[in-house]
Amino acid sequence: MEVTRKNFKEILPLVSESIEKADFLAIDAEFTGLMNGRDVSIFDSPAEYYIRLYNGASEFLLIQYGVCAFYWNDKKQHYLNEAYNFYLYPRRPGPEKMFLCQSSSLDFLASQGFDFNKLIKEGISYMTETTESRLRDMLAERQKNYSTEKDLISIPEQHKQQIADICKKVRKFLDDKDSDCIEIDRCNNFVRRLLFQELAQFKNEAFVETKVLENQNRILKVTRLKEGDDVTSKDNQKKEKEWEELDDAVGFSKVARMISQSGKLVIGHNMLLDVLHSLNHFFQPLPEDYGSFKEFTHCMFPRLLDTKYMSSLPPFKDKINSSVLQHLFTTLSDEPFALPKADSENGRGYNRTEEKHHEAGYDAYVTGLCFLAMYSHLSRMRGEQTARLKDPTCPVLKPFLNKLFLAKTAHQDSPYMNLVGADPTPSRDHVFHLTFPLEWQRNDINQLFSPFGPVTVQFLDDVSAIVALSRREQARDVARALAKNSKVTLIPFVKFKHKITSSKVQIDNRRQTSPVKQVCVLSVLALLFFVFLCPDTNLLCPFI
Amino acid sequence: MEVTRKNFKEILPLVSESIEKADFLAIDAEFTGLMNGRDVSIFDSPAEYYIRLYNGASEFLLIQYGVCAFYWNDKKQHYLNEAYNFYLYPRRPGPEKMFLCQSSSLDFLASQGFDFNKLIKEGISYMTETTESRLRDMLAERQKNYSTEKDLISIPEQHKQQIADICKKVRKFLDDKDSDCIEIDRCNNFVRRLLFQELAQFKNEAFVETKVLENQNRILKVTRLKEGDDVTSKDNQKKEKEWEELDDAVGFSKVARMISQSGKLVIGHNMLLDVLHSLNHFFQPLPEDYGSFKEFTHCMFPRLLDTKYMSSLPPFKDKINSSVLQHLFTTLSDEPFALPKADSENGRGYNRTEEKHHEAGYDAYVTGLCFLAMYSHLSRMRGEQTARLKDPTCPVLKPFLNKLFLAKTAHQDSPYMNLVGADPTPSRDHVFHLTFPLEWQRNDINQLFSPFGPVTVQFLDDVSAIVALSRREQARDVARALAKNSKVTLIPFVKFKHKITSSKVQIDNRRQTSPVKQVCVLSVLALLFFVFLCPDTNLLCPFI
Repeated sequence: MEVTRKNFKEILPLVSESIEKADFLAIDAEFTGLMNGRDVSIFDSPAEYYIRLYNGASEFLLIQYGVCAFYWNDKKQHYLNEAYNFYLYPRRPGPEKMFLCQSSSLDFLASQGFDFNKLIKEGISYMTETTESRLRDMLAERQKNYSTEKDLISIPEQHKQQIADICKKVRKFLDDKDSDCIEIDRCNNFVRRLLFQELAQFKNEAFVETKVLENQNRILKVTRLKEGDDVTSKDNQKKEKEWEELDDAVGFSKVARMISQSGKLVIGHNMLLDVLHSLNHFFQPLPEDYGSFKEFTHCMFPRLLDTKYMSSLPPFKDKINSSVLQHLFTTLSDEPFALPKADSENGRGYNRTEEKHHEAGYDAYVTGLCFLAMYSHLSRMRGEQTARLKDPTCPVLKPFLNKLFLAKTAHQDSPYMNLVGADPTPSRDHVFHLTFPLEWQRNDINQLFSPFGPVTVQFLDDVSAIVALSRREQARDVARALAKNSKVTLIPFVKFKHKITSSKVQIDNRRQTSPVKQVCVLSVLALLFFVFLCPDTNLLCPFI
Repeated sequence: MEVTRKNFKEILPLVSESIEKADFLAIDAEFTGLMNGRDVSIFDSPAEYYIRLYNGASEFLLIQYGVCAFYWNDKKQHYLNEAYNFYLYPRRPGPEKMFLCQSSSLDFLASQGFDFNKLIKEGISYMTETTESRLRDMLAERQKNYSTEKDLISIPEQHKQQIADICKKVRKFLDDKDSDCIEIDRCNNFVRRLLFQELAQFKNEAFVETKVLENQNRILKVTRLKEGDDVTSKDNQKKEKEWEELDDAVGFSKVARMISQSGKLVIGHNMLLDVLHSLNHFFQPLPEDYGSFKEFTHCMFPRLLDTKYMSSLPPFKDKINSSVLQHLFTTLSDEPFALPKADSENGRGYNRTEEKHHEAGYDAYVTGLCFLAMYSHLSRMRGEQTARLKDPTCPVLKPFLNKLFLAKTAHQDSPYMNLVGADPTPSRDHVFHLTFPLEWQRNDINQLFSPFGPVTVQFLDDVSAIVALSRREQARDVARALAKNSKVTLIPFVKFKHKITSSKVQIDNRRQTSPVKQVCVLSVLALLFFVFLCPDTNLLCPFI
């Protein structure tokens, strides 16, 4: 079901109902880009991975959010789904947003049929809770001051004639009583502000407001006050409208908070970025510190499950060639797996016959189906019969719960972030930092390591790379053999990382001590002055 | 005439023709945002204004470009127009672009009917000359290496079976001779790369290439080589296609370069941002230095005229209330002005009856009409008869040539940037920097200055502001009177600016001398150590 700001208010109670009755929820989101600056590296630790996303991904916008609720039908003995595909776009009176886009990402979305016109015209607004409470305070404060006197702006010489003419026109309109309102156009922002100030002289006879035309031009509308309506009631209407507008701008954040409050199992496929953007856009800005991020995430979404991580472990790992969502979906349709039935009954969800890949709602639906297929496969292996998921913390799912897949580090032993405990610290004994001559190519490196089996190479620059052995047991031999090679320098990966980290700490320390240093510089200059320039004074003697 | 990548190649010769025959060109552009970070301030000098735009505007994308060519029809004795409205979007093989958007700007464009789907699907690509030559060099280099051997990647354990199966399948396809090609799907990027490498064993029998499906999924296509077609000719076709793709990605930059090469008068309304983005996106990255920017601009566009600047000077200034393009257009339609006839004959331009405000092509057309109306008005004042503009450097236009309007500083005496000479340095004797108590509001400041007439106030923070007197002659009295006021501190603007600039220079110097400082710190520590901790040694004595 497509949700835009045209039907959001009407749909919101249905969404709440769907979440309420669901056994679990699947989500998916689309963004204006994935990564700015240097990408994640294959040997990044989960903490390093987070920092790179924090720096490189958080300025993109979240533009579509899919929520698919799976609820059990006892009569049919299978799941049904209700799905919502929300278009999201930040709006006034929320804060103006500056956001990044990645040209290829938008290009990709457009090719999948994403409707950018609908996005910008009809997207539902959202904001963090932090922003919401700040705006509520500010609005309350502003409304308090409506009745008190405003600061006066002096009218610049070149506008005096225009303002005087308009005031005359309004006076005439009030006296003539031919019509109920007049509109004043062709005024720029500044002139409108001046007019608000100058037309205040008629405040007991007329109400002045800004009117936004369909083409977004702004004009002033002056309405004659009738008997019965007084300035105060007009003012109150205005105030109520402002609160309503703020409420509209909070928009989709309400859905995100419903999901959080439900405490239900939330499924996603390769969901780290979805989680990251959800927190950052609907709850509060991401913390810089990785530990705080894990706590924050677990607090907002206490039960997460990533189908990409699930499919990367036995018994699925060897049976699945590609875990790209569409490929996974196809693979799980065939033996030895089976996709469950989970259609929609009331037109509020998807059915298997539709193919709307990369529409967030549909991808959430497909993710849910993939999850059910894998869950059933595991249950069948244990000889269990029911297809219903009653307890997300059951032994079958426990190994996958609250672990988020780290896509680019997939060929490591630790391709996940553990939200509820220590992250894995796989051995890096078979990984080295290699420095080599400028003229070398990948082949030269392969050649160098050929006696020790195949290697994975990640270039850092023209003369250095990270090299990982496939045959881990060769690590000691490699180190010994290459120690004598004068063309290259080989450092164990752990040692290399340590070196980088400590040099970073040094730089940071140096930065922080800078004011102290300034004092020191002055002292040394003073001292040197005495020592070198005043050789015949005895000024230093008291110290000695 | 709308131009997208679907008809760009076909239209390009027409554009060239239009530019060729034009007496002058009008341009207009649409962007994804206007300003990031702190906005321009009303007392910024032209150089400061440039630096602020350089830092705050250059990351937005240029998404629509209007070019309207006005050419003279001798028979009809008036101008005709040919206009082009180009949708622009950067594409591969040009570099991936990260760009900023301002939510309200996109919202505004959408409300004006801007088609974002068309933009992203059909926008014409572009790139700077710098990027173009780099990409040409890289492609030539890459193609040179096609025939030489590639670096081998070792096949990870988990992919061995899949790769072997596919190789077997291809072998069978080649032996069976049932079809001319087969497609290999459901492979991720890495697997496709491995397959390119492993399928090279069939290079004398089959040609392997990536095929992009409509939904942007990538698959491998293996085509049987027929008698007659050999690997070399297939390779050459591929190379030619790559050059063609690069040429397509240079796209609109060709039009921008045509305009530059024509040396014709180029008209814009409030055109500084248009010029800035044109240079930055189609020619080369903007220089950081303001002087270089002026030279660069004048070199690329030797004859610029800004209708907003033109309308801000006598004899137009007093007759024009608002110089927003639409308002100007309406004002110039009435007495004492007259809009000229300048219709389109061949459907390639606009006519007066259309109303497509904020479509770049239409705005360029309207700008051209406004220019002609003002030009004719000036000519008539001088008693000249012809409506044709024969020489853009004629005395009537000279005062406006190569001066770009600085919108936010409009109420100053110097609201322009002079591209061909020194910028104006208006007196700032009537402007002050004021420091005041935290609890003060705008009214308190108005109150403070009330004996000296009205003031313009620009707040810098909670306790300081820039204040300009309307009655300039009061400057000396103000300074004298407020010198005794213990609540406020008043500094002449020039002195304040000087203070800021010199403190910036100091900070920069401090940064640069940092290595020296480190040596000093060590020295002072060493000295202090001797002085304080070794009182009973005589180590310092040799210095004294």
